[in-house]
Amino acid sequence: MVIVGGGFGGLRAAKALRDAPVQITLVDRRNHHLFQPLLYQVATAALSPADIAQPIRSVLRGQANVEVILGDVTAIDPVARHIVVDDGQIPYDFLILAAGASHAYFGHDEWGPLAPGLKTLEEAVAIRRRILTSFEEAERQRDPTRRKALMTFVVIGGGPTGVEMAGAIAEIARFSLARDFRHIDTRDATVILVEAGERLLSAFPERLSRRALADLKRLGVEVRFGLPVTAIAPGQVSVGDEVIAANTIVWAAGVQASPLGQSLGVPLDRAGLVLINRDLSVPGHSEIFVIGDMASLHDSRGRPLPGVAQVAMQQGAWAAANVMRAIAGRGARPFRYRDLGNMATIGRNSAVADLRGLRLTGFLAWLAWAVVHMLSLIGFRNRMLVGLQWLWSYLTFGRGARLITGASPN
Amino acid sequence: MVIVGGGFGGLRAAKALRDAPVQITLVDRRNHHLFQPLLYQVATAALSPADIAQPIRSVLRGQANVEVILGDVTAIDPVARHIVVDDGQIPYDFLILAAGASHAYFGHDEWGPLAPGLKTLEEAVAIRRRILTSFEEAERQRDPTRRKALMTFVVIGGGPTGVEMAGAIAEIARFSLARDFRHIDTRDATVILVEAGERLLSAFPERLSRRALADLKRLGVEVRFGLPVTAIAPGQVSVGDEVIAANTIVWAAGVQASPLGQSLGVPLDRAGLVLINRDLSVPGHSEIFVIGDMASLHDSRGRPLPGVAQVAMQQGAWAAANVMRAIAGRGARPFRYRDLGNMATIGRNSAVADLRGLRLTGFLAWLAWAVVHMLSLIGFRNRMLVGLQWLWSYLTFGRGARLITGASPN
Repeated sequence: MVIVGGGFGGLRAAKALRDAPVQITLVDRRNHHLFQPLLYQVATAALSPADIAQPIRSVLRGQANVEVILGDVTAIDPVARHIVVDDGQIPYDFLILAAGASHAYFGHDEWGPLAPGLKTLEEAVAIRRRILTSFEEAERQRDPTRRKALMTFVVIGGGPTGVEMAGAIAEIARFSLARDFRHIDTRDATVILVEAGERLLSAFPERLSRRALADLKRLGVEVRFGLPVTAIAPGQVSVGDEVIAANTIVWAAGVQASPLGQSLGVPLDRAGLVLINRDLSVPGHSEIFVIGDMASLHDSRGRPLPGVAQVAMQQGAWAAANVMRAIAGRGARPFRYRDLGNMATIGRNSAVADLRGLRLTGFLAWLAWAVVHMLSLIGFRNRMLVGLQWLWSYLTFGRGARLITGASPN
Repeated sequence: MVIVGGGFGGLRAAKALRDAPVQITLVDRRNHHLFQPLLYQVATAALSPADIAQPIRSVLRGQANVEVILGDVTAIDPVARHIVVDDGQIPYDFLILAAGASHAYFGHDEWGPLAPGLKTLEEAVAIRRRILTSFEEAERQRDPTRRKALMTFVVIGGGPTGVEMAGAIAEIARFSLARDFRHIDTRDATVILVEAGERLLSAFPERLSRRALADLKRLGVEVRFGLPVTAIAPGQVSVGDEVIAANTIVWAAGVQASPLGQSLGVPLDRAGLVLINRDLSVPGHSEIFVIGDMASLHDSRGRPLPGVAQVAMQQGAWAAANVMRAIAGRGARPFRYRDLGNMATIGRNSAVADLRGLRLTGFLAWLAWAVVHMLSLIGFRNRMLVGLQWLWSYLTFGRGARLITGASPN
């Protein structure tokens, strides 16, 4: 059988099939599993790329029934039952499709280079470069208008990624860089978070949204509600009628599913998500399961399941179980999501957590967030490195990966 | 006064002028100081870029008489006494030029993209990508000839960098990756080290060269002596009459000084190094000092000083002292190099060290190498991270930064 994608869903599915009588080929176009919840920390110079990534084949090294292939899956043929990779076809009897999602610019793909999103390590390093270069250029800039634009950072989207990015940029400016420049005061930087809806973290209870807002304001972040982004041009973004001059614009507003879903020939929703059956299979193809950010499914109260690691992992294990049931000649069981809760961090000693009714804020939520994320990392090495760097940053207010690398200065 | 370059020489000069009555502008085109002796460990997936780099402005944060500028110095005008950066000129009364060196392909600049060298973090990450991608492609390659080329790695140059690269690649193949692939045995990889001279590590005593050769052979590295590289084409390198098919070719054979030396209008040697006076100043310009990899100077026995960190750092301190003497109205003193010794590591438990007569090999040399390099890193954070990752690698035989990142798959 074939698994497409070595993210949270695909990897969990492969592991759940460890003792199953199947030969698994896992295909990913990257050699590494990425711990996306901490990607914003790479973008804000707190961690190095390798600290939150792990080679997929090394994670599955000990599992004899898995073969890992580095390859780009370009299409799926559900009739002939094979996937198409760059240099050939791979047949399958069962297929678990977990290819994830990328950014959606709501029909404005030209905004992509101007307002990069945060899905890959390359994007995270590019955003890090943009943030750090802006301060470097501001240090040399004599024109106050231009200097103000260099020191203005706009984050679009008030979900967890947007909140975490805005908080982290504000902390860089307020603490990490504060003593390093001679001509600018980095604490004068303007960080603006733009949310088209009425509140931040809409998946959280309202009280936690308000707290997140208060914590961001305490860090000096300006938050704009209720207005959509109407235009993005080099160095400026339009929010409603307001034009904000900003050298750094980060997109955290929307995702669209991997285009692979299209080749299945089944109904998709507006964002390209595959409308799957309750047992995670695809209508008309009980041998194909679609999971994670590619799949559209609603919970018992009719709300769509969020695009988070928890959903992908539980669906991965569930799809694996349904594969095993099919092999044993039994029927598939409908997926049930067990919501373990939501967390988002705003900054130092500041987070919000909604854990099955237990609502935490401030230091306690931040501690819970740190412990949960550190333990969720794969591998002792990454846990150790992340833990130590967090400890170091906590004690020194520093950010250890302040590298400007890459071809272009911007 | 102005210092060009935040490497070992420039940084040491700036620090030595901490209490001097001067206002220093340090210009570098990178925002970070790079600990180049460990760059090969980034190229071979043992360390992350940020582990061996430190923001220059954060290193000099506490020194009030220094201003750090991120900028590309394009020329020097020794008559008008200013340097030219991308967006203007910076005047100086004293100038310390420490802009380093890049690769020399001996008139074959077209070899550059085919056989990348190891001077910047970007180059190290590109070589890492090439090495790891070669194994990934070999895993999927059915043609045995092509597969053999994918698993052949040629390192050109038998100095410390070449020896360290060849040893590290052999260790990756023999240990780190050995259990991760299903269709190839990574231990079948061929690692070839090409040295045009008659022995490795020509700056070391002959006995240590022989030991390094024996240690490399024990790791399975093939070493070719006495023949120059005559041609490099995509996927192949010609050594004498032999044509070696190799997907990965690494250049560690020669350097040329920064082209900035040319704008001084003084004599240069063949590799573009500035022929400086014994007091490190430039003929005819007692206010300009050139140090480190840009400078050509011979020791008391007539041998050229090597392009190593020790020389650059001692010259940085010396140039700073001569600046202070000039300000005090005293004459400059001729530089005296204090050779603290040479070290090169071959692999696990294996290195050679020549420390002022004390010659070490094997485990002891390796331990000395590790301790000296860890302590030489700037900053507690980097020391801690490098030390822990080495400990982890030592215990597990693993390499923690096995990331394939970047735009192109090769």
